[in-house]
Amino acid sequence: MLNAYPTAIDVRRACRSGAFREPTAGQCPGYTQTNLIVLPEKHAASFRTLCERNPVSCPLVGETRGNGDPRFRTPLGEDSDVRFDAPGYNVYENGKLLHDDIPDIRDYWQDDSVGFLIGCSFTFEQALCDAGLTPRHMITGANVPMYKTNYPLLPAGVFRGEMVVSMRPYKRADVERVRDITRPYVKTHGEPVAWGPEGMKQLGIHDLYRPEFGDAPEPLADDEIPVFWGCGVTPQQVIMSSPHVNGFVMGHAPGKMICVDLPVAAVLSS
Amino acid sequence: MLNAYPTAIDVRRACRSGAFREPTAGQCPGYTQTNLIVLPEKHAASFRTLCERNPVSCPLVGETRGNGDPRFRTPLGEDSDVRFDAPGYNVYENGKLLHDDIPDIRDYWQDDSVGFLIGCSFTFEQALCDAGLTPRHMITGANVPMYKTNYPLLPAGVFRGEMVVSMRPYKRADVERVRDITRPYVKTHGEPVAWGPEGMKQLGIHDLYRPEFGDAPEPLADDEIPVFWGCGVTPQQVIMSSPHVNGFVMGHAPGKMICVDLPVAAVLSS
Repeated sequence: MLNAYPTAIDVRRACRSGAFREPTAGQCPGYTQTNLIVLPEKHAASFRTLCERNPVSCPLVGETRGNGDPRFRTPLGEDSDVRFDAPGYNVYENGKLLHDDIPDIRDYWQDDSVGFLIGCSFTFEQALCDAGLTPRHMITGANVPMYKTNYPLLPAGVFRGEMVVSMRPYKRADVERVRDITRPYVKTHGEPVAWGPEGMKQLGIHDLYRPEFGDAPEPLADDEIPVFWGCGVTPQQVIMSSPHVNGFVMGHAPGKMICVDLPVAAVLSS
Repeated sequence: MLNAYPTAIDVRRACRSGAFREPTAGQCPGYTQTNLIVLPEKHAASFRTLCERNPVSCPLVGETRGNGDPRFRTPLGEDSDVRFDAPGYNVYENGKLLHDDIPDIRDYWQDDSVGFLIGCSFTFEQALCDAGLTPRHMITGANVPMYKTNYPLLPAGVFRGEMVVSMRPYKRADVERVRDITRPYVKTHGEPVAWGPEGMKQLGIHDLYRPEFGDAPEPLADDEIPVFWGCGVTPQQVIMSSPHVNGFVMGHAPGKMICVDLPVAAVLSS
């Protein structure tokens, strides 16, 4: 995959100008990548509680400044505007998808909108590459496959729903190394949540080749198994499962993340 | 229920002297109550990660001082000894229950033992009483009923297992108030995880009158439903589900908590 943008602000500026509309895997290595969900202020407290109770799928890394200001709180990035800084956006109205992968959300951002940034597993992919365990989708140049599951989140206020997971195939003999490498990245999903056919059964994933988000994977080799991580698309699934969440809600297009100025070291556990 | 001990240190001293061997619900209102799990140092890092990934059932409030010192880290209590400070203890050997509700663990504590204190839902019961929603087991003087579930924890290192929950019956019309009252207690399980027949189904609880821990509840009234919270007995269930955890592991006897000097306000979310 083309690694065109060395820093997070380079990626954000390329998104803002419209020059970059692709998935962000492999971009700005060494920087943290984040998922976005934009909610009305009245749901902000419930959403923070949802993140606190479900930190594996919804690790809250930061927020916008409040009062409708679309800039991140520092130190996520001084020159920022969540309305334009992802390569693509989804828009929901009353829990139903209204727009898929549009270039910006200027027309939907409200005076009381708050943007929440949730850690993304792309952040630990460089560490997997460094260990000779390069994720398959980085080799094929595809978007990572993501799946709805039947694993219920622990409810919080108005929010309820099921976890979304991302998948990378590995040999079973490599799973413990993959767990060890990704475990410290507690703010970007950490170690896998499940793996193998037993993991698919536990999560209620029936067809590996029909992911709900991202690209379908190429066929796994005979000695490979799917390995699943919590995924920050989860809040978008939650929006569609929470009947009391009305009005416009916005998120990034899955795989097209907001890159922030936090170095990877800042999201590692001590 | 007799409220014999006004402060946490009073409860601990009564346990240490052997004078108090009962469940601790209703004792030292205004103080935090905690579950205990004692592990060998080699599993401590994995256990901290388990708590970080599963904070609703395993909210880590504190630890002992390390290097086999059985005293809490301050500010949990200066005059403390986890080997004696609960009214009763369970002991496990190689994942199997060896002793049930013995008065102390002096014979099993090791040079490398670390005690972890996990928030207990008894901590928010005074707030429910203050709102006229007194938990049933406080009225009947029984131990709270606790159930194994089939809700998988998110794995961490050597640890895997299923959540244990506690149950208090309420009218369905009161559930939103009960949720609101308990939600801020993020370090003592917070708001319920599930409720009603639909919650029993989700958690895989088949018989409300046969809990795995604590006392069986009296029959619910026609207009009542069971309301379930995460429970700090979960780590003991984890020990029995994690095949790579060997040697002696100790915990409190379910319902017989270690009371610590932290005021309730210290475990409330801001």
